[in-house]
Amino acid sequence: MSNSEHNIITGHAGYVLEDVPHLSDYIPHLTTYPNPLQDNPSYSVVKEHSVDVDDTIAQKVVVHKNSPRETHFRRAGPRQKVYFESEDVYACIVTCGGLCPGVNTVIREIVCGLYHMYGVHKVLGIEGGYRGFYSCNTIPLTPKVVNDIHKRGGTILGTSQGEGGNDTLKIVDSIQDRGINQVYILGGDGTQRGASVIFEEIRRRGLKVSVVGIPESVDNDIPVIDKSFGFDTAVEEAQRAINAAHVEAESTENGIGVVKLMGRHSGFISMYATLASRDVDCCLIPESPFYLEGPGGLFEFIRKRLAENGHMVIVISEGAGHELISESLSATNKQEASGNKLLQDVGLWLSQKIKDHFTKSQKMDITLKYIDPTYMIRAVPSIASDNVHCTLLAQSAVHGAMAGYTGFAVGTVNGKHAYIPFYRINEIEKKVVITDRMWARLLSSTNQPSFLNPKDITTHQTGN
Amino acid sequence: MSNSEHNIITGHAGYVLEDVPHLSDYIPHLTTYPNPLQDNPSYSVVKEHSVDVDDTIAQKVVVHKNSPRETHFRRAGPRQKVYFESEDVYACIVTCGGLCPGVNTVIREIVCGLYHMYGVHKVLGIEGGYRGFYSCNTIPLTPKVVNDIHKRGGTILGTSQGEGGNDTLKIVDSIQDRGINQVYILGGDGTQRGASVIFEEIRRRGLKVSVVGIPESVDNDIPVIDKSFGFDTAVEEAQRAINAAHVEAESTENGIGVVKLMGRHSGFISMYATLASRDVDCCLIPESPFYLEGPGGLFEFIRKRLAENGHMVIVISEGAGHELISESLSATNKQEASGNKLLQDVGLWLSQKIKDHFTKSQKMDITLKYIDPTYMIRAVPSIASDNVHCTLLAQSAVHGAMAGYTGFAVGTVNGKHAYIPFYRINEIEKKVVITDRMWARLLSSTNQPSFLNPKDITTHQTGN
Amino acid sequence: MSNSEHNIITGHAGYVLEDVPHLSDYIPHLTTYPNPLQDNPSYSVVKEHSVDVDDTIAQKVVVHKNSPRETHFRRAGPRQKVYFESEDVYACIVTCGGLCPGVNTVIREIVCGLYHMYGVHKVLGIEGGYRGFYSCNTIPLTPKVVNDIHKRGGTILGTSQGEGGNDTLKIVDSIQDRGINQVYILGGDGTQRGASVIFEEIRRRGLKVSVVGIPESVDNDIPVIDKSFGFDTAVEEAQRAINAAHVEAESTENGIGVVKLMGRHSGFISMYATLASRDVDCCLIPESPFYLEGPGGLFEFIRKRLAENGHMVIVISEGAGHELISESLSATNKQEASGNKLLQDVGLWLSQKIKDHFTKSQKMDITLKYIDPTYMIRAVPSIASDNVHCTLLAQSAVHGAMAGYTGFAVGTVNGKHAYIPFYRINEIEKKVVITDRMWARLLSSTNQPSFLNPKDITTHQTGN
Amino acid sequence: MSNSEHNIITGHAGYVLEDVPHLSDYIPHLTTYPNPLQDNPSYSVVKEHSVDVDDTIAQKVVVHKNSPRETHFRRAGPRQKVYFESEDVYACIVTCGGLCPGVNTVIREIVCGLYHMYGVHKVLGIEGGYRGFYSCNTIPLTPKVVNDIHKRGGTILGTSQGEGGNDTLKIVDSIQDRGINQVYILGGDGTQRGASVIFEEIRRRGLKVSVVGIPESVDNDIPVIDKSFGFDTAVEEAQRAINAAHVEAESTENGIGVVKLMGRHSGFISMYATLASRDVDCCLIPESPFYLEGPGGLFEFIRKRLAENGHMVIVISEGAGHELISESLSATNKQEASGNKLLQDVGLWLSQKIKDHFTKSQKMDITLKYIDPTYMIRAVPSIASDNVHCTLLAQSAVHGAMAGYTGFAVGTVNGKHAYIPFYRINEIEKKVVITDRMWARLLSSTNQPSFLNPKDITTHQTGN
Repeated sequence: MSNSEHNIITGHAGYVLEDVPHLSDYIPHLTTYPNPLQDNPSYSVVKEHSVDVDDTIAQKVVVHKNSPRETHFRRAGPRQKVYFESEDVYACIVTCGGLCPGVNTVIREIVCGLYHMYGVHKVLGIEGGYRGFYSCNTIPLTPKVVNDIHKRGGTILGTSQGEGGNDTLKIVDSIQDRGINQVYILGGDGTQRGASVIFEEIRRRGLKVSVVGIPESVDNDIPVIDKSFGFDTAVEEAQRAINAAHVEAESTENGIGVVKLMGRHSGFISMYATLASRDVDCCLIPESPFYLEGPGGLFEFIRKRLAENGHMVIVISEGAGHELISESLSATNKQEASGNKLLQDVGLWLSQKIKDHFTKSQKMDITLKYIDPTYMIRAVPSIASDNVHCTLLAQSAVHGAMAGYTGFAVGTVNGKHAYIPFYRINEIEKKVVITDRMWARLLSSTNQPSFLNPKDITTHQTGN
Repeated sequence: MSNSEHNIITGHAGYVLEDVPHLSDYIPHLTTYPNPLQDNPSYSVVKEHSVDVDDTIAQKVVVHKNSPRETHFRRAGPRQKVYFESEDVYACIVTCGGLCPGVNTVIREIVCGLYHMYGVHKVLGIEGGYRGFYSCNTIPLTPKVVNDIHKRGGTILGTSQGEGGNDTLKIVDSIQDRGINQVYILGGDGTQRGASVIFEEIRRRGLKVSVVGIPESVDNDIPVIDKSFGFDTAVEEAQRAINAAHVEAESTENGIGVVKLMGRHSGFISMYATLASRDVDCCLIPESPFYLEGPGGLFEFIRKRLAENGHMVIVISEGAGHELISESLSATNKQEASGNKLLQDVGLWLSQKIKDHFTKSQKMDITLKYIDPTYMIRAVPSIASDNVHCTLLAQSAVHGAMAGYTGFAVGTVNGKHAYIPFYRINEIEKKVVITDRMWARLLSSTNQPSFLNPKDITTHQTGN
Repeated sequence: MSNSEHNIITGHAGYVLEDVPHLSDYIPHLTTYPNPLQDNPSYSVVKEHSVDVDDTIAQKVVVHKNSPRETHFRRAGPRQKVYFESEDVYACIVTCGGLCPGVNTVIREIVCGLYHMYGVHKVLGIEGGYRGFYSCNTIPLTPKVVNDIHKRGGTILGTSQGEGGNDTLKIVDSIQDRGINQVYILGGDGTQRGASVIFEEIRRRGLKVSVVGIPESVDNDIPVIDKSFGFDTAVEEAQRAINAAHVEAESTENGIGVVKLMGRHSGFISMYATLASRDVDCCLIPESPFYLEGPGGLFEFIRKRLAENGHMVIVISEGAGHELISESLSATNKQEASGNKLLQDVGLWLSQKIKDHFTKSQKMDITLKYIDPTYMIRAVPSIASDNVHCTLLAQSAVHGAMAGYTGFAVGTVNGKHAYIPFYRINEIEKKVVITDRMWARLLSSTNQPSFLNPKDITTHQTGN
Repeated sequence: MSNSEHNIITGHAGYVLEDVPHLSDYIPHLTTYPNPLQDNPSYSVVKEHSVDVDDTIAQKVVVHKNSPRETHFRRAGPRQKVYFESEDVYACIVTCGGLCPGVNTVIREIVCGLYHMYGVHKVLGIEGGYRGFYSCNTIPLTPKVVNDIHKRGGTILGTSQGEGGNDTLKIVDSIQDRGINQVYILGGDGTQRGASVIFEEIRRRGLKVSVVGIPESVDNDIPVIDKSFGFDTAVEEAQRAINAAHVEAESTENGIGVVKLMGRHSGFISMYATLASRDVDCCLIPESPFYLEGPGGLFEFIRKRLAENGHMVIVISEGAGHELISESLSATNKQEASGNKLLQDVGLWLSQKIKDHFTKSQKMDITLKYIDPTYMIRAVPSIASDNVHCTLLAQSAVHGAMAGYTGFAVGTVNGKHAYIPFYRINEIEKKVVITDRMWARLLSSTNQPSFLNPKDITTHQTGN
């Protein structure tokens, strides 16, 4: 999509609004209706029962006295007018990609929000991810069906791996054929890119169908938004693994506990889990390269810590040390390696490297225990704060669709719910840790070296 | 303090900075030193190793195209220059008021932050709240002493009830006599008002002593800041009580579960716990008056829900229905009542009223189970997200004191750490729920009536 | 029932078997069938696929070289022959009395055991306790219906308070009218006495109906059996309350935490929770009287502990100090007291007494926090070990009924599952703590005084 | 040791007592002292303050009318007379082998039991397992030092891998040199065999030193005793992994969750975890061989379950399928395999085999998630019931040593604490599952096939 297609509105003192598409952008003469919430006694008691249509959310809150105002997003929430009559709405929900705590809560609250706030009774669950659109697996969703699902992990709709290769045309055919006019899509970056393409096709066909993304990534690597749902739950659950690694490490001489946590491109889970635990000696993330051998390398640091404390705990993101593994594998027989997926698990790889280094090269007795809690973390039900987060995201999604917005994702920006155009969510650069002050805080709390040569720093920062 | 004493800085497009005091405001010719963090390898790897001295945080993020910019606060974080030499710092920490999850984490991280980031080795714990200043109970705090305390609930320093009647002069004498030059104070509104008075006295005496407040209120009723630490933990732990009430209620015909949660003036815990749980039929908070008898009253709602579902769960904040209890008590023998504190517990009171109404007046068999989890909630260690929150608050506090700021509280504003002048934290109006859209969301999710006469609404809103 | 009606079989070296009734005792010429388990491949792989019909369980395992062998019970388990054809079985399950962790697991496993082991497909849930027999509330139970219920607390069948006053004749009429021929009854002592009377009436009418009791008492006060299901879960969950009380007590000077735990006649939960926690200074149980004032009294002990440690934790069973409360209430205005149930809660009563004594009489500042976790404990789902316990109890019950035994309760005796005649379960004396060595272990671990005058000891022991 | 050296006492009706050694067996004229507990007020209130010297515990409780009485063990508990004066006791504690929940509780209670019950103040912790005896790492243990350790997992004394190759003579030299006269040894079968040899050497030297074993094996494979401490905690914690595997499996089409649990020779953890969870479709244990391919094999069963339910959960003990892996590895390049420990992890191996079979051979899309929670399970603190269990074991150990018994292990037999001679604990055959009725219960609850050819069954049972 060319930039010219973006809805950009400018204002006073450098104000920019990156607005989201609206059905009325491409469908003329749409009828509007008063928002049924106005008759809902719950909403009549509060002043702000609907959101001012002009409300926007500032993306930048750290400012100087004379800073320009920069980017804003449209505020989420109920509007005075809606673009659908409740009895005409036929909504569907689909969940794609890996598991993440809170998916069931989002499903529940889309269903209950549509039902209780707007009187919408027709909601369809698409089973097994995008491909469920053109297979025959669907499940009607009512408040009764979804009543207790937020207490379970996983997704009652099922999901499927690898969302690549889905057939957009068949998906939109299916939407059109079934008469669906609100599509709620949960999933990570691949999924949201898919949602964007689906939206484009729907716009091309001129259909009155709202497409809403609810970004889902346990790794918390979605751009723009403050924090993805399920992230706090994941960090909470990761504490168990770190505690266990710490207990194991403390119980033997030269005990080393290694915990692998999720995060293919971003080290947020590892970083927050480390900050929350305080029992971690070293945290390795994808954004911050490290090396093993030689002065300033990881082995040297391990030797030092063991000498000081007698034990240590290492947390490593699944995507950390990527280049090292590649190098290492190409050094050995490549064919063997490619046949053995295990060797590509960074946690197993690092554990083996450490064992080899100390036991074989250094003739030093160490005891290393490796813990991979990934699936135990992903599968738990969400904690209370994530439950609230999911509930509000779902309600924002519903308000946005009813108000006729489309082609947007919901998320919090500086703590406020906003509608964000897909192109901002799908930016090629993932949200990453490294230039953040949080990383400095972490380094200072673990007292680990940065493992970066000055060269690396320069290179990396040029890229920002 | 008169308004004229406030540090107000104005700027471009309606920008207002409500700044915090600085030691240099009243002590001339203070020496500054380069921030030792600049030599800390952890900080050298990140671009933003210190915060731009001009950074401020916008309080208002929901804006219109042409809105004025309004209030800002000074951004928290390390400065290029500090006003203390590390070896000269003698810090103390005091914890006052009721327990709250996370206090030990804040204590730990002040100690570790001073030690590891700034090389400050002299930190004193004042035991048993403010009165510990002039009694002889103190404990030297080192990273080793505080190493594991974040895994325990409560406060290792102890606290004391009722901070009224403390002798400011004696406290400041004690600070002066001991040579303390950084004072970190954890506690709720009474405590922070005390902190403000202590700061005034210190300024009056011209002492080079930074006074830093870390607002602590499990009720989350502190103005300005996004959320007080420990709040998410409290909401999480409250789920157990609500779950239990739900199970008990479901297991008998006309089963009613009543759960009292904390919140003397503000219903945040009840509201968030209700939103997170989805098993609650009715949530009663201090901000939203209710009445028992007659049409639209609570009894009518209970009867309706029991008829529909056979059971129900009520969550009530400890401060809800205050006026009702007063009326009710004055109706009965006042002398008896005042002698019996139990009758003033709103949970016990409401439970009794419901039992009396249905069993006696309505000859209807109900089974009511009352749960008061207050102390079980307050005493748990903080969850991971609160642990991170506490860690960052402590680090912000330390950076602020080292940079010479004083008379301020730390907290997050729109997700960013800020230094907030005491007068804003100590505003007479507590942070409350009622006009918030969140309350509308809750009402719509429980489908409970508002229990408000139109009269009440008008009256209330005029007050805002 | 006269002793002569008991099935007593004697043997070698003082061997006594207190056998349970059998349908063939009062119905002549019953057909038997081979146990369908014999064709079940699961059972064919193990040697002991059915239990030897002569197996019995010794009640006494602490013996001397020349001890007589004494009482035995019939071993539970599948028999070679059964007295029901699977397609003819119509079973029902009823749950009575207070909640207890594990009830849903027992329900689930009776249903699944009948279905998977014996091919029985007709099982009825009676809702709301005994009265459900003659009201119209029943629910058909299938493996699908009960599939996940063991993960929830409470009972899906509901229960009702106060099982007194049920109409045995109407219950048996209902059983007879519906053609039910296996009745599984979960509940405490009142319930099991009811079960015994139901059995007698069924025998009087000569019906081919097996009546099986699964004793349920979170208090663990059932005679003969090792431990009632749900007890370990209750002790586990009680740890939270004790931990919280400990944290609260530690956080203030002269802090006292009081925790009330279940146990109307028996102090098992309090005793085990105290032994498991090690943070309790004093444990008060119904079996061991105590007094407040004077030398050797509780107040003296509290004063001593506070002087030594600065804080203390007291655990008290709901039935402890019964006589003290009665005395205390008769001293005050009786009418007022009887109207106020609150005054009869021993935890509130003791808390008030301690506060009055120290604050008023002793002018000593104490801070007392009272925690009543009763409903939070009862309502949790059972822990894994209780889940296994419940599963095996249910299977034993099913095997017993299929084998034609009736009028018995299932339970473990010295770790083995046994069938115990109702009259032994319904002995007037509850299982109590006091003469047990466990109590000595507890006293030595808390170092609390016994609070017993020599007089008390004598009196009590005469009663044993 | 020849059988003739065993202390066997016979009695009435086939009674056999397999007694434990006593210091007086090989040291003449030992002085005895009255048990200090007799003056302990805690013990004076209960009837049974000490155990009758003739009390023994029957090993067999499932008996027939005319069964012989068979084996008994000496009952644990305080004796009227002790063989040590409290001030002369110098005790030490050593923990060996892998971690197990509850080790710290046992340590704590040995220390507190010696201190509070017997007034023994000199207890030494040996660090890092047996080798700590002749290295210099020891730590004095007092009630204050061990006060909170039961709330932590692991062992505060540390342990070491592979207890083989310890130098008995050096250990006994160290005991003798330091003047230690009570040795408490926690550990599994290797450790207890070591303890037995240490005891023999001590007896040979004629030293007045009691050697007490507290068997520790999270796998629960110790002969004679009912259940080893920590086992219930392990089963409890294993539920998390099984739940997660279930959620993952349910969330995709043809989802398979594989969980590896501890158990090198015995499948108790897997079996109990499966029985407790009810979400497991197939449980594979070392005692019950299985095969993959062909009719009746695991692959066929998997295909069937996936067709029926769309997903499945497999639990496998670490020691299951041992022979299959050996075969499988010898089929591939042996050299490669032996260099790759990973291939010998049965969980990874089985996961790979299943993936290969379905994805490659069957062209069937499956999603397999493998979870190995071993270290997360071992490292947790013990649950309440295990805490009580550990406490009582420790007290039994202390009573036994004080009473002059030696060369014994403590454990429960039919629920009663007993002293068991080392040779019975160290029997070559581990405790195993297969012939147990419990296994039939499990098979019938999972409805899995037995995977045994009739041939296997015959062979196996002949061996019993």
